[in-house]
Amino acid sequence: IYNAVGVAIVVVTGVWLGHHHGGFAWDGSAHQFNVHPLCMVLGMVVLYGDGEAPVLLYRVFPRESKRNLKILHGSIHLLALLVSIIGLVAVFNFHRVSGIPDLYSLHSWCGVLTVTLFLVQWLMGLGFFLFPGASSWLREWYLPLHAFFGLFLLAVSIATCLTGITEKLLFSIMETYSLRAPEGLLANSLALLLLLFGGLVGFIVTREEFRRPPQPEEEALSVHFTSLTPSSP
Amino acid sequence: IYNAVGVAIVVVTGVWLGHHHGGFAWDGSAHQFNVHPLCMVLGMVVLYGDGEAPVLLYRVFPRESKRNLKILHGSIHLLALLVSIIGLVAVFNFHRVSGIPDLYSLHSWCGVLTVTLFLVQWLMGLGFFLFPGASSWLREWYLPLHAFFGLFLLAVSIATCLTGITEKLLFSIMETYSLRAPEGLLANSLALLLLLFGGLVGFIVTREEFRRPPQPEEEALSVHFTSLTPSSP
Repeated sequence: IYNAVGVAIVVVTGVWLGHHHGGFAWDGSAHQFNVHPLCMVLGMVVLYGDGEAPVLLYRVFPRESKRNLKILHGSIHLLALLVSIIGLVAVFNFHRVSGIPDLYSLHSWCGVLTVTLFLVQWLMGLGFFLFPGASSWLREWYLPLHAFFGLFLLAVSIATCLTGITEKLLFSIMETYSLRAPEGLLANSLALLLLLFGGLVGFIVTREEFRRPPQPEEEALSVHFTSLTPSSP
Repeated sequence: IYNAVGVAIVVVTGVWLGHHHGGFAWDGSAHQFNVHPLCMVLGMVVLYGDGEAPVLLYRVFPRESKRNLKILHGSIHLLALLVSIIGLVAVFNFHRVSGIPDLYSLHSWCGVLTVTLFLVQWLMGLGFFLFPGASSWLREWYLPLHAFFGLFLLAVSIATCLTGITEKLLFSIMETYSLRAPEGLLANSLALLLLLFGGLVGFIVTREEFRRPPQPEEEALSVHFTSLTPSSP
């Protein structure tokens, strides 16, 4: 069901920017700005949410091994990161061409902070969980932090989208927004969809009963490898 | 530590509205509008966060009984709700006096939604956990939902503050915001404090190891009362 909401989010964003703001391009014009919200919503919310936590992927691929789910988790988040970076390049480049100052608004502060922390989180996940170097107690120590920050960053990311939608509406339809212009209603609804998506992903990820049951033979070989070695008979 | 951040939030909000917007009053003027952000931040974020989850209160009052902690949780949230409602009355009344339309912006949609859901959540908490009527399996079924929505509403509430700060800055300092006016930097920093506060509360509340250890004799008498009755020897 969160996937349906995710698709709806991308479609509504596309309609908003396509119908009300003339579509997408990469020419330094306002059409290039439109690439920014689309990429950020697709990258930092929908792809990020879809790849969020092996727990969600496990619901979709119940027969996959833990290692493959981890690789899939990392790959979807890498894609999310790349799409988001395209979205950032789009807006910084648009600002440069149009002579608009960077990084003064709350939206920009939150956005840069979120993407930076997401990159750090991704690199730390790679180092701790996919490279064989990290010891088992280090992984066990880091896992709850990784899970917490994963969800926290999704929340900050959605909050940042909401400030971005508010900014865009006040910049472009300040006069008619308060008269309930259709564009305002559409963009407000997009924001509610984003909150719904975040709520669904957050709810599923935090449910104990949706978690992948540990499979003893895999556990022994991956997470608990070092603790097994000294105590095995 | 989240308490220090909470106090900092209220102080920064007070300085922002007091120094840059002329302080507080209840006369239908812009000074009455200032009551709105102060009350919402105090009610829906700081008090809400401080009273969030008996788990936080348990850290502060480790010797209190479970029932007293629940009553304290409910009371702080009732206070949060009342302060928030004063904040809503302040802005609706200001809009009426100034002829500004209501409920068109994303900020207003999110805000009304959040306070309404908070009221529902509070009433359901009262009915399920403080009145003796609810059966044990009903309480056990509702508890994770109550806990999830508690944290989700804090997140939406902070996101709503961020859209409100963005709106206020674009309405009042549109020209100088992009020149990094001190007011803009102050309000942006306030928003970062709100995110930090939400992150700290969220982190503490979701830690297993910070949870109140169940005390067998209380458990038997409260939550598991009905399940105990038929199987007791």
